[in-house]
Amino acid sequence: MSDTIVVALGGNALGKDLPGQMAAVRRTARSIADLAEAGNDVVVVHGNGPQVGMIQEAMTQLTRSDPARYAPCPLSVCVAMSQGYIGYDLQNAIREELANRGVRRGVTTVLTQVEVDRNDEAFGRPTKPIGAFMSKDEADALVRDRGCHVVEDAGRGWRQVVASPSPVSIVELDTIRSLVAARHVVIACGGGGVPVCRAEGNHLKGVPAVIDKDFAAARLAEQLDARELIILTAVEKVAVHFGRPDERWLDDLGPEEAQGYIASGEFAPGSMLPKVQAALQFACSGVGKSSLITELDRAAEGIAGKTGTRIHS
Amino acid sequence: MSDTIVVALGGNALGKDLPGQMAAVRRTARSIADLAEAGNDVVVVHGNGPQVGMIQEAMTQLTRSDPARYAPCPLSVCVAMSQGYIGYDLQNAIREELANRGVRRGVTTVLTQVEVDRNDEAFGRPTKPIGAFMSKDEADALVRDRGCHVVEDAGRGWRQVVASPSPVSIVELDTIRSLVAARHVVIACGGGGVPVCRAEGNHLKGVPAVIDKDFAAARLAEQLDARELIILTAVEKVAVHFGRPDERWLDDLGPEEAQGYIASGEFAPGSMLPKVQAALQFACSGVGKSSLITELDRAAEGIAGKTGTRIHS
Repeated sequence: MSDTIVVALGGNALGKDLPGQMAAVRRTARSIADLAEAGNDVVVVHGNGPQVGMIQEAMTQLTRSDPARYAPCPLSVCVAMSQGYIGYDLQNAIREELANRGVRRGVTTVLTQVEVDRNDEAFGRPTKPIGAFMSKDEADALVRDRGCHVVEDAGRGWRQVVASPSPVSIVELDTIRSLVAARHVVIACGGGGVPVCRAEGNHLKGVPAVIDKDFAAARLAEQLDARELIILTAVEKVAVHFGRPDERWLDDLGPEEAQGYIASGEFAPGSMLPKVQAALQFACSGVGKSSLITELDRAAEGIAGKTGTRIHS
Repeated sequence: MSDTIVVALGGNALGKDLPGQMAAVRRTARSIADLAEAGNDVVVVHGNGPQVGMIQEAMTQLTRSDPARYAPCPLSVCVAMSQGYIGYDLQNAIREELANRGVRRGVTTVLTQVEVDRNDEAFGRPTKPIGAFMSKDEADALVRDRGCHVVEDAGRGWRQVVASPSPVSIVELDTIRSLVAARHVVIACGGGGVPVCRAEGNHLKGVPAVIDKDFAAARLAEQLDARELIILTAVEKVAVHFGRPDERWLDDLGPEEAQGYIASGEFAPGSMLPKVQAALQFACSGVGKSSLITELDRAAEGIAGKTGTRIHS
């Protein structure tokens, strides 16, 4: 087992638009720098829901404005673009924070492809929200004019949804390993990774999907033989009976208990549910492995055992 | 001196749009694989003129369609996105070509920032064409509505031009070194690198510019202590008196001769001129260094001394 920690960043680590992102990554950088400064080997995975939706919208509008000049841009290419868009800000903020602390470590964004199974049933059942919230009229137009899928999201408005297949393996695993060995802080599998599937021979083909970043982080942690998966989000701990009089914040969570809570619908799909599932998947992937779910600013406290919800096998 | 070769890819290595890119990178991948298979450590730099222009156009249209929702996207961020857009296709094509040949080497795109001098006089004199060719009416509208700079390009139409400052240093140099040491084929400084300048303290700030990829490649080769810079383009050798009865293709070119040809306007600005200048800059950067300019498919022949124009100090 290596000393590597894989950190999955939630939406609050990046903000929802470009000015929001530039502010949010400063706070995120402090949390990642805390871990790196303490001597951990850190690999960072981030989501891209709002960002990849924005890029897809931009590229779609561009093609519609002049179809003869601009070919349609596949969703997998939009994911690759979002890795550049987000990685640039994030690596820069972490680099600056480490330099301010006198910590001499490189920070690198690795453009990462993640293989999925072309027969994954997720392709027939889009669930992953991307892009901005829309009005009902905007959502109706998207369905009518472009054949997109949309869902109403907990009273906050409508969003486009796309397929979210399970990550099978990380194509650029060797790259990430080499950079971790050279003690770089590595940003990888951005937006869950560019989703590709095996085609003929050695060809990898992009597929129209966005992989969940928590599951991509869990798979990456497993393939790196990492010690720990940390999922950073907007809450300090996982709660059950959330918002009810018997609400309870969990310090630790084992497989049977977790499966029970999952079965009884304690965790919100698209929010805490994939985090708990991914955390559990990694914790059960080998002896001595565990996961932590905690608040963005509390990563260092969390791995010191002072807060967060520890998920173990 | 290391055994590293830095290869700068011209526009013909990538094509002008997405379908063109997917076709062109296969041919490019064969050329890069020839060099890697022969045992060289290869770092690839590519341009992004058409691509970054397309992305900037898409992001500008997006902001105009809904300014309240979508903040303007700076050109430096568009460059970062173009590194994802191009790097994804290029690394995938090279990875596949190496796998087909049974060569086990990783291929990695490093999101690269390149520092420029904020007082570079290039900021006052935009010269670098980006985006698609336009009609005069389209160009006039761009100047009028968005304050862009445009130029007429040798009878082929109009294009937007942006500032193209000189590359001072490669921010992610350590990353590239680590990956070369691990024998990866590395794609770095895509589109000349994301242009940044030093701000307060350790902060790097994006600037509205596109760095010339040949100069970025020369600077990278210098900082990597590379053995050789190879600039791949659409012609087999550099010519003087091009298109005239006394046209002559050059096998080699020294500094005095090169400076003479440059002074007499032998090489087209924005085309062969920056290639010769970048090749010369690298060749003169240390003892035993030289550069080669040749056709995309002839890289391996070129370094074997069988073709191309060799630029030496």
